[in-house]
This record gives sequence, C-alpha cells and structure tokens, in this order.
Amino acid sequence: MKVSRRTLLAGAAGVVALGKTAAGQAPQAPPDPSKVRGRPSKALGQRAPSEKPQRLPRSANSSGTPHHDLYGTITPADLHFERHHAGVPEIDSRTYSLLIHGMVERPIVFTLADLKRFPAVSRVCFLECSGNLGRTAPPETTPQQLAGLTSQSEWTGVALTTLFREVGVRPQATWFLAEGQDAALLARSIPVEKAHDDALIAYGQNGEAIRPEQGYPARLLLPGWEGNANVKWIRRIELSDRPFMTREETSKYTDPLANGTARIFSFVMDARSLITYPAYPVTLGRGWVEINGIAWSGYGKIRRVDVSTDDGKTWTPARLQEPVLSKAHTRFRHLWNWTGGEAVIMSRAVDETGYVQPTRAELIAARGVGSVGYHLNPITGWLIRADGTVVYRQEAWG
Amino acid sequence: MKVSRRTLLAGAAGVVALGKTAAGQAPQAPPDPSKVRGRPSKALGQRAPSEKPQRLPRSANSSGTPHHDLYGTITPADLHFERHHAGVPEIDSRTYSLLIHGMVERPIVFTLADLKRFPAVSRVCFLECSGNLGRTAPPETTPQQLAGLTSQSEWTGVALTTLFREVGVRPQATWFLAEGQDAALLARSIPVEKAHDDALIAYGQNGEAIRPEQGYPARLLLPGWEGNANVKWIRRIELSDRPFMTREETSKYTDPLANGTARIFSFVMDARSLITYPAYPVTLGRGWVEINGIAWSGYGKIRRVDVSTDDGKTWTPARLQEPVLSKAHTRFRHLWNWTGGEAVIMSRAVDETGYVQPTRAELIAARGVGSVGYHLNPITGWLIRADGTVVYRQEAWG
Repeated sequence: MKVSRRTLLAGAAGVVALGKTAAGQAPQAPPDPSKVRGRPSKALGQRAPSEKPQRLPRSANSSGTPHHDLYGTITPADLHFERHHAGVPEIDSRTYSLLIHGMVERPIVFTLADLKRFPAVSRVCFLECSGNLGRTAPPETTPQQLAGLTSQSEWTGVALTTLFREVGVRPQATWFLAEGQDAALLARSIPVEKAHDDALIAYGQNGEAIRPEQGYPARLLLPGWEGNANVKWIRRIELSDRPFMTREETSKYTDPLANGTARIFSFVMDARSLITYPAYPVTLGRGWVEINGIAWSGYGKIRRVDVSTDDGKTWTPARLQEPVLSKAHTRFRHLWNWTGGEAVIMSRAVDETGYVQPTRAELIAARGVGSVGYHLNPITGWLIRADGTVVYRQEAWG
Repeated sequence: MKVSRRTLLAGAAGVVALGKTAAGQAPQAPPDPSKVRGRPSKALGQRAPSEKPQRLPRSANSSGTPHHDLYGTITPADLHFERHHAGVPEIDSRTYSLLIHGMVERPIVFTLADLKRFPAVSRVCFLECSGNLGRTAPPETTPQQLAGLTSQSEWTGVALTTLFREVGVRPQATWFLAEGQDAALLARSIPVEKAHDDALIAYGQNGEAIRPEQGYPARLLLPGWEGNANVKWIRRIELSDRPFMTREETSKYTDPLANGTARIFSFVMDARSLITYPAYPVTLGRGWVEINGIAWSGYGKIRRVDVSTDDGKTWTPARLQEPVLSKAHTRFRHLWNWTGGEAVIMSRAVDETGYVQPTRAELIAARGVGSVGYHLNPITGWLIRADGTVVYRQEAWG
C-alpha cells in the first residue's frame, strides 16, 4: 500500500497531523488477530518482551533511572535510582526495629507493625541524589546519564512528628541523628523542624512495600531534601541540641563556594528541569514534535517551565501537566516545529518561590570550579544536528 | 528485655501510642549491621523476598488486585487487575497500527510512533470491571476477592479528540466502534462526546510502556467508565451515526431493573468504597487502629467518605488523602479505638454530584435480584469478632 506522510499544523489547538493516509485505496485495518487465543491470567504481570527499560549501574553503589524511556511522572519502583555507600542490606521485616532516643522523655523501640498502626500519610514527591550531574559529559550522553539520580514515587508512612510526640522530644532538642542499618551506618544530622514540617518514616512506595534499594522495610523521607539525608533502612534516631558532624556532612555533601569557603547542611534541592525527549540517542524527523521533560524543586511547586529552541535567545512557557504537586516531578510539554537545520533546545524551571534555574555561567560564578560536584542544577541543552541526530550540548565547566 | 505495650490516645491530634518502652533498662538499638557489605546495584530492582503480593486469578480470563497488601493509591503495574475475553495477545509494537475510519473525512492508519508524536496527556484514574462484586461471598473473603477488579494507574497517551480532529470526524457521527486486537475482537459502541470529554489512546502506564494485560501497545481509556468499554489492544475505530449493538452490549453488560426491563449503555461506574484494613484475614489487637481504604466514582471527585463502626447506626466522615483527583481511587483513613467486643465496620462514599453509595437493600429495590451482576456497588462491611478475627460481613442478596 502506498502511503504519504503529512506533517502540518491544523488549527489553533496545535494538533499535529501524522499517520498514513490512503493513496488511491482505502486504509486497511491491522491484520485480523484470527482465533489465536492469548495467554491466560497470571499472578504477576511482566513487561512486553520488547520493552526493556533498565537502570544504568554507574558503579556497584549507584544506578540511574532511564528517563528517556518514561512517560508521566511516576517512576516504576524497579527503575527508581539507587545510591548506597555499602550495598543494599537484607533486612528481615519481622525483626526490624527503629530506636528513637537521646533528648526524649521516653526512648522507644518501634517494630514495623508498630509503625504501621499509627495514622498514615501518602504523598508523591521526587527524591534526588545531590550528585545528580556530571560536570563534563560527552555528546553521547542520555537523559539517564545526565540526571538519572532523581526519581519519583508515591510514598506512604507515618509522620515523624507523630513518633516525636510519642517519645516526647524535649524542647531543647533541635537536631536529630538518622542512622541507617547498612554496613556504612550512613548517618546524617537533620533539624527537628523538618520532622514537624513533612518528614515521614516511609514503608510504602508506589502502593506496595518499599523496595530493598529504597530502604526496605522503612526509611526516612525528607521531601525536597538531598537523597542521602533521606536515610534508608533506618535503625536509630537520636535527638540532640546540636548537629552530630558525621562523616557524610564534613568530608562529603558540602558545597565549595567561589569565595573559597564552603557551605554545609545545604539540604534543599534547588529547581531543575530536564528535557527527556528529544534527547540522545533519538534521531528526529522534521515536522511537529512535542518537546517534553520533567521539572522539580525542593522548595515547593513548579510555577513555570520555559523552553528555548534557539539556544537560549528566546523562551516560551511550556504546558505543565496537572496536577502540579509540591516537591514533585512535573511533566512539561512544548509543541515545536523542527524545520531542519541545527538547533539547541533547552528548558528552564521556575519554582513557586520565584527562583529561576541558573545558567552554567551563573552557577560557576556563585560556586567556583571546585572539585566537588554536589547540588549542581544548571540549565542543560540538547543539540539537534541538521541530519536529525540529537546529542548532549556540551559546555565547559569553568 | 522486658517490655510493656501501651495503647493510649495522646492529645487532640489523635496520636496512637505504640512501641516498646523500657522497663528497668534503656531500649536498645537494633543489632549493628556490622561490616557485611550489601548487594551491589542492579539494572532492575526486585521486591524483598518476603514480600509476595500477587494477583488472584479467578479464571483464565481474570485476576484481581491484592488491595489488602497495598498502600496509597497507585497500583503497581504487575498487580493491576486483568480481565480479558480470549487471553492476552502478543502484539509487536513495530507493526502495531490503529485504523480510524467510517464517517470521517480522511481515514488514517496510525502507527505507534505516529501516536507518540501527537501532544500527550497524563492522568491518574481508576479502571474498574463492571462485574467487580460477587453478590454472595463467604466470611473468608478478602478485599481482593470482594473488589479486586479495580486498579489505578497514571496513564499517558494522546487525547482521542486530537485523533478525531486529524481524521475529520463528520458532524453526523455520534457513536464510534472500538475494536480490540484480541482473539475475541472485543468491541464496544461509545458516544463521540466521550472522545471530546476525556478519552485517551493510552500507551503509557505508571511511567512506562503499558503492560500486555492492560492493552500493550495501546488501548482506549475512558476515565470513569466500565472497564470493558476501555478496549485494550485497540486496532480499529469506526465512526457512525448509531451504536453498533455488539455482542458485548446486548448479551452482556446490561443491567436488569426491578421493573423487569433492563438498561443498556450504562457506562459510568457509580461511587463505591472499600475498607482494605482491617479486613479478612487480619486478626486485630485491641486499641487504636486506623481503618483505611479506597473510594472512587466515575462521575468525578470523591467528596466524602463516611465510616461506621456500629453496623451503620452512626457515621463519621473519614480523612481523605490529598490530592483528591477526579475519577480516581482516593485513600480514606479513620482512627478508631477497638475496645473489644463484636463490631461491624463499613464505609460509604459520596461523590461530587452528591450521589451516596447505596445500601444493599436500596440497590435491590432499584435493580431487583436478577441473574446478572454488573454495576453493583453496595455498602459492604467487615465483622470484627470478639477474638479480633475479621471476616466479611455477609448479607443475603434478595
């Protein structure tokens, strides 16, 4: 059957015309599936054999989400990024417990069953590793390689403030230590006020029990705060009147500044955005294409995402997929007619505080070109070559 | 270590006191995980070995979601209910196509790549089989057995109205046939106005490609409408000025009424609710427990869910988990102090139209006791026996 491919914009609503129309004869329905009976029902579903999204292990301690394979905003649990400092421990949920002690009236050991009897809270939010950007990347960089260490789930658990009321946190306690039950005993100091804001001890992820790599059977969840502070496999919380100055907040997770000093306890992940389509390794055909991606901010809701298709000279607000949730990946979409020729496409997030995602130059001006790469959220772009191949748009760091 | 278990209500916020407090000695942290390195990162995550949620195959053509194992509102894709009439077909996404023809200006065959180039829409909604209630059930009935044929996903696809504009649907076309590429060639007649409202051709489910049992690579999605009308593996859409009166809308999916007639094309799923905890086979301990479950309506948002703990004599509004989305499972929670003794707990959904989920008696008065069991949404209850065992509260049908 001869077909023609049309590419046009029909009407103000921005409809893209595609598909095969008949040339001389009527279009045909797909082959009749005949009378071949399909597979019977099963206790657990599986992906279609040709669909093979995978995390990308960067090391034994890290693997990233394949954002270029994903739609919408939820990250399937088996594709949620991993980052651990001593591997994923195997913890028996029947013997798991969490001790809360220190500056409290009544130190208490909670079993998992105890945690589940308290009033529960569910919320959708992103979780992002503070080291979610390689500062140098080759043209052959995918969205997964560029920013795979952010993922999103619907989390369920008990509000930490509920547990703090239960143990009777003393008024002078202003910080707590969160310690994980992994071989690294990863530990961070967290201000008590975050517990009263929105912290959870989470045991549910995307409707089911939390997965081992995300902290089974329970983890600390600090919406909007850097991943490592959301201590997984949480075993102990100790209240105090000062931070504990752990290894992870002295040797790591501090941010060098341009003036030679460094900032510490920089918990909140700033606004960022990522175009997930089109991106390497896509080859683009001419015509209308919906540029889309995700934007997020640890400070609250995304207010706007601007898209540029001319290397940052002009910007147009993208459509945001409702509902826009606080501290959550928000899908943005922007219809664009690629007429051929080289182009650089970029996105820029603006959050509800008015914060605008910085350019790389602005970030370097503030933070210098130091050796540590945490909390980097520059605007990034994709270069569309005249032949339609799409590559990461490289920029020098300093 | 001797421990005592306390159960009390602390303060107006309804905090439940649980956990093990020290009796004579300080509570201990869980065992030091020592220096046993954990498992390295992996391309795909897996559940913890002890977590085994499963769908319950009722037949070769049906399996239900284990609601009693789930939290929040998202159903993991491999636990989404299945219902098919001739098994799950294997469709090659590279050769898949969808024909739209009939009363249109330009019949068009769309490939999957074509569908993905159009502007996309994502939305969270439930999908429910119209036969999601056995009218008789033994005391040993789980939430999965009682109402496992409803599930929720974040769906992504192209608005059907976009495709209809593309093919140029003629003004006199008021219905369309949706036909699936399974061996049953399942087909339903759908009013065109639903396409202009919120229908999608969906190819994404919970962030990834739609799963085979849910219609891979593409399905019709009619938010709020009975499952079987959401034709999976969709291969053909034919526009017409009248319904097609297919097998599935004459021999099936019609509702007998008490007056001896029947209603047809009863697409919208009425409001319903389901307590998922506590329920069979839980054995409840005395003290504070958070009764929780899901409520949903095909007509829009859930406005309120009432919970009764005295067999329907009195009702109290439950807390609804935000955000409450239209045509979506909404988690409700109600804190209750079970002091022992027999009790029947129930939930009752009210949607934004003001519709109140009916009692079984009200439903029988309207619909009679005919042999067909579609669109049944009565209030159901769980009986808590004095020994804490929980069973389905049986009621006769007629």
